[in-house]
Amino acid sequence: MFDVKKMIEEITSKKEIKNISFTGVGGSLACFYAPYYYVMREGKNVTTSYTSSNEFVHDTPSCVGENSIVVISSRGGNTAETVEAGRVAKKLGATVIGMTHEEGENGITEVSDYVVLFKDLSEAPYEESKTGYILKIAIETLHQVEGTGKYELMNEAIEKMNTLIPAAEKAIIPEAIKFSINYKDDNIIYTMGSGTAWSAAQQQQICILMEMQWINSSVIHTGEFFHGPFEITDPDTAFLLLKSTGKTKPLDERAINFLSQYNHHFTVIDAEKYGMNDLGEVSEYFDYDFHTAMLGVFNKLLADMRDHPLSKRKYMWKYKY
Amino acid sequence: MFDVKKMIEEITSKKEIKNISFTGVGGSLACFYAPYYYVMREGKNVTTSYTSSNEFVHDTPSCVGENSIVVISSRGGNTAETVEAGRVAKKLGATVIGMTHEEGENGITEVSDYVVLFKDLSEAPYEESKTGYILKIAIETLHQVEGTGKYELMNEAIEKMNTLIPAAEKAIIPEAIKFSINYKDDNIIYTMGSGTAWSAAQQQQICILMEMQWINSSVIHTGEFFHGPFEITDPDTAFLLLKSTGKTKPLDERAINFLSQYNHHFTVIDAEKYGMNDLGEVSEYFDYDFHTAMLGVFNKLLADMRDHPLSKRKYMWKYKY
Repeated sequence: MFDVKKMIEEITSKKEIKNISFTGVGGSLACFYAPYYYVMREGKNVTTSYTSSNEFVHDTPSCVGENSIVVISSRGGNTAETVEAGRVAKKLGATVIGMTHEEGENGITEVSDYVVLFKDLSEAPYEESKTGYILKIAIETLHQVEGTGKYELMNEAIEKMNTLIPAAEKAIIPEAIKFSINYKDDNIIYTMGSGTAWSAAQQQQICILMEMQWINSSVIHTGEFFHGPFEITDPDTAFLLLKSTGKTKPLDERAINFLSQYNHHFTVIDAEKYGMNDLGEVSEYFDYDFHTAMLGVFNKLLADMRDHPLSKRKYMWKYKY
Repeated sequence: MFDVKKMIEEITSKKEIKNISFTGVGGSLACFYAPYYYVMREGKNVTTSYTSSNEFVHDTPSCVGENSIVVISSRGGNTAETVEAGRVAKKLGATVIGMTHEEGENGITEVSDYVVLFKDLSEAPYEESKTGYILKIAIETLHQVEGTGKYELMNEAIEKMNTLIPAAEKAIIPEAIKFSINYKDDNIIYTMGSGTAWSAAQQQQICILMEMQWINSSVIHTGEFFHGPFEITDPDTAFLLLKSTGKTKPLDERAINFLSQYNHHFTVIDAEKYGMNDLGEVSEYFDYDFHTAMLGVFNKLLADMRDHPLSKRKYMWKYKY
């Protein structure tokens, strides 16, 4: 397992860290929302930013500089804008940590000061997954730089996630089957969430429903629902709500209460039913990971039911765009 | 006209300001994205946050405290979550600036240290509008606290916007008529943008299309388009792209180039055609305002064409939800 603690010790021994920034695209951007959200809530003086790679390249946040750690991620290692973002960060004097699944030389290894090889949840426990590592990077940074970030609780939670996730992946199968039957013919599905679960809902929208299933989709923040989006609700509008376990749970509950009155085509994935409360007060920072793992089960079954493989594309990888 | 300069002088003479945070809901959140984006790009040590009111209430960003200015906004003055956000900010020791359109006592005036009454663009020039004032608050804060933020250029740009907006509102009518004819029967419309224009696209999605027209909608960041969402594209998928004038323009152009090849139902509102380049290098911070004003013209015509008044609601204001 990669030693994140040692890496951050080495970085902080060489220079003062005032900022930790995250940049990537698609699922490799969404994965950064939880650590970004964590630093925004737990950091005292350490600042953070969360930016799509090409916006980072062309219009870099001013907090990025020589006192920054910039974390980039590309599963295959060669996403052009993300590699370029790493190059821009390095030019500004930042220390670049590159996350990739692929061993050997690639764009990520070329521009990164440190390379973290992650595994998929099907290959290794949570703590060696992409988001397990990224959270550890954020945890060690806050802890070592300024002693904030609920260090013990966060590390205990990571350990609990190692067993919680595979157990929940099995237990949730009946819910996922039901979803695949009830949503297979929908032409548009609204995903919803708050806190770090918002990001799992956004990833489900763009990477799964739109990209891999060609189903129209839109993410709604449950806090914003009543200030516009809820007017779209009809009895059969399709909703998928990823319920949070932390402080933003009341936002989700208000939306669920409304949907219970005016809609009969909504599904709630409730993380509390699968033991997320065991993580204690830091559980909200793991809601993205929980929901992303559960949706992995949902998406395989939905793809089967629709005879539309998750690997099918119209444009992607087929030519240079 | 409200004296923003004097207000910020008074605030900064009383305490050290390290943070300016923004919170609201719907269009009263979207309006804050441009000043947030501006501080994220131009600030040196001043930090910022941008949060939906109820998330702010339940899970407040840790940068908010006694060294903060927190700007809240509610057109009518009584949006419950936003008033509560002001209360939370005040309890944390922040100085609260409340924006509202309505004179007299209301929730905003109750929780705010300073109240800025703004006008609609139909009532007064840009500099007295909601976003004109909010940008001025951000400009004065960066300038007075740390001498950053391109002070002269930004103030010149505000003055130029006073005349640019009404001229463009007239000149764009033919484009808006064409849009109302071509999109009147669409069941789903994707809005797109980057930089501060992203926020105008997001506001168009949730406040106009979903809320006021009951048309399904989803916003796509042009930087993320090629990492998932573009797979939804068919020849007749409906897109509305709000083109930026600043550093993120290449992101938009890449999306336009793709749509030109595979789609024949996309509309681009091009701010450069209406003189936004006259604002110089700071024009990107005004793209939200330009596009929001232009969409005001588009939306009236679309509502007419669809026989669906912008004031029509299923749920909003009809009961307590």
